[in-house]
Amino acid sequence: MDGRPTLQSVADRAAVSRQTVSNVLNAPHLVRPETLERVQSVIDEVGYRPHGAARQLRTRRSRVIGLRLQPSVDGINGAVLDRFLHALTEQAQLRGYRVMLFTATDDHAEIGQYSELLDTLEIDAFVLTSTHHGDPRTRWLADHDVPFVTFGRPWDPPADGATAPEHAWVDVDGAAGTRAAVEHLQSLGHRRIAFLGWPAGSDTGDDRRLGWRRAVQAAGVPDHELDALDVGVLDGVTNGAQAAHRLLAHVSPTAFVCASDSLALGALAVTRSPAAVAGPTGRRADLPSPAVIGFDDTPVARAVGLSSVAQPLTEAAGRSLSLLLEQLSARHQGPSTTTARGNDHHVLLSPSLVVRESSAPSA
Amino acid sequence: MDGRPTLQSVADRAAVSRQTVSNVLNAPHLVRPETLERVQSVIDEVGYRPHGAARQLRTRRSRVIGLRLQPSVDGINGAVLDRFLHALTEQAQLRGYRVMLFTATDDHAEIGQYSELLDTLEIDAFVLTSTHHGDPRTRWLADHDVPFVTFGRPWDPPADGATAPEHAWVDVDGAAGTRAAVEHLQSLGHRRIAFLGWPAGSDTGDDRRLGWRRAVQAAGVPDHELDALDVGVLDGVTNGAQAAHRLLAHVSPTAFVCASDSLALGALAVTRSPAAVAGPTGRRADLPSPAVIGFDDTPVARAVGLSSVAQPLTEAAGRSLSLLLEQLSARHQGPSTTTARGNDHHVLLSPSLVVRESSAPSA
Repeated sequence: MDGRPTLQSVADRAAVSRQTVSNVLNAPHLVRPETLERVQSVIDEVGYRPHGAARQLRTRRSRVIGLRLQPSVDGINGAVLDRFLHALTEQAQLRGYRVMLFTATDDHAEIGQYSELLDTLEIDAFVLTSTHHGDPRTRWLADHDVPFVTFGRPWDPPADGATAPEHAWVDVDGAAGTRAAVEHLQSLGHRRIAFLGWPAGSDTGDDRRLGWRRAVQAAGVPDHELDALDVGVLDGVTNGAQAAHRLLAHVSPTAFVCASDSLALGALAVTRSPAAVAGPTGRRADLPSPAVIGFDDTPVARAVGLSSVAQPLTEAAGRSLSLLLEQLSARHQGPSTTTARGNDHHVLLSPSLVVRESSAPSA
Repeated sequence: MDGRPTLQSVADRAAVSRQTVSNVLNAPHLVRPETLERVQSVIDEVGYRPHGAARQLRTRRSRVIGLRLQPSVDGINGAVLDRFLHALTEQAQLRGYRVMLFTATDDHAEIGQYSELLDTLEIDAFVLTSTHHGDPRTRWLADHDVPFVTFGRPWDPPADGATAPEHAWVDVDGAAGTRAAVEHLQSLGHRRIAFLGWPAGSDTGDDRRLGWRRAVQAAGVPDHELDALDVGVLDGVTNGAQAAHRLLAHVSPTAFVCASDSLALGALAVTRSPAAVAGPTGRRADLPSPAVIGFDDTPVARAVGLSSVAQPLTEAAGRSLSLLLEQLSARHQGPSTTTARGNDHHVLLSPSLVVRESSAPSA
């Protein structure tokens, strides 16, 4: 940390929220006169100079939004963010904006890119994806008063035990997705429903695990049984197959709810192979194959008949963009605009379950 | 067509190639003095003003490359261009360039976007994908003297029966890919090898068909048999399944070479389903399943064990970028640079066959 004043240090010193400091800079009509005066004097005193201050003086916006392109995953699930990118680019263009891509190897490199893009190409705003615990990117952008929205909720509890996270975000309710998957399986008569997920500690993965756990618990499955039905492995078809194999051997689930389509494909391969029936640990040939449900409804799921939880990515892109353009408007339109602020800049969308052969009712 | 002078009309009037006119504008040191003088006087006479002329006067480049994001295909093959986009963005950034995305519903809308992007955001250059017969985009960019490269060869024969197409391009040799697939199958003993492709008239599809046809022909299969083994349907898993079913019923191929992984998945579903063995038109259960080979080595192919022809997309992106940066350098570095011009700005890359279970030798 250098000693340069930040939005946070101004906020602390003036005993207001960061949002208030941002409003003082960008939408002063929203701030009460005495607060405005107090914050302004702190800004002058500490010599706070947000990146945004220079940009704010520009007469035209660049109408360009920056987005980090995640590394191309040699697999199945990477396609989700590509679909978000497509939807974001299409909808941005309809509203007169362009999407500029950049890449980065980690969060800190991404922050370096923000700085460079703001300085050299006058990017108006950023859309962030893949938020996680201890994410330094949102704090940097807030401190530098750069408009942004995240696709992905802030996973940290609010700092200082104070208010809710201030920044705008859109996310998909992963727990609701796995809950819908479990309830669908329960309606087909399944009771021993395993969760094939990622190791604990991944925010998205833990969210999906939680939805499964609560729904299975609600049906009266005791905790020790739940623990045995819950497996966390790194993503991938092979890992999914091995984990499914172990679960089948030890706890004989009749169904798998998976944190990804990759894991689900592994489970599908194990449960549908001839060896799954004929092998030494095989089930009896007259029993139905265990049901399998994936997550993300990738093209692979459609191709192989895998039931899967679909994220509303087009809507997520549209809502993200709306939240971003609201921020940009508030900065440029001045006192006549009243921007409603509340939880309306936190959007949690519901996924939907797509049922295919892999969880069809037994004949 | 309006009466505004274009690069072509200047070239016609000065009796030189378009490349020469471009050199006069951007790299005059490459042009002989008498030609330079003649072309310059035509330019003055007709009042030709390329978009590039204004940009050329700029002291700094934007270092931004424009790329049209193709519509998100609800399927499997769209992932190919996404992988090209990832590779292009990563490699551009390593060389100090960014990729700006835009969308368009057709070629003419894309041209409208070029114009807007050049005027408002000072894009340096464009990368085009999905070239095809009668593609108006390359002509527009050449006429406006905008640097560009295409991923995809120019499919039209050279205009006026004159020289080879002038613009820089990178492509993957589709015919070599299907030929490799056929030769692999022939080495396994297959002789009745069907082609499951798209309707004639698609440039990429016809190229892939040609590779199959020549390789099967080379093994002595007569033309009437070839015609019966050759099917063209619109892309998609269902279409692939139906076409494979018909081929099996009528000409009993022992292998399928497909123009896409989607079509191949359809063939795979038909040839591996229980009905394919037991049904009324089914083959005898003691015969091996027909071999199936797809095209593009998508994640779906990897997931289901489908052999497939892989395009070297990272290399294609790198070569495209190199060709583009050469053009930009030639414009900005002036007389000390000598740019070699020849077929070195036309790059045809070889794909490679990835063999998996779907074309494994019979046990």
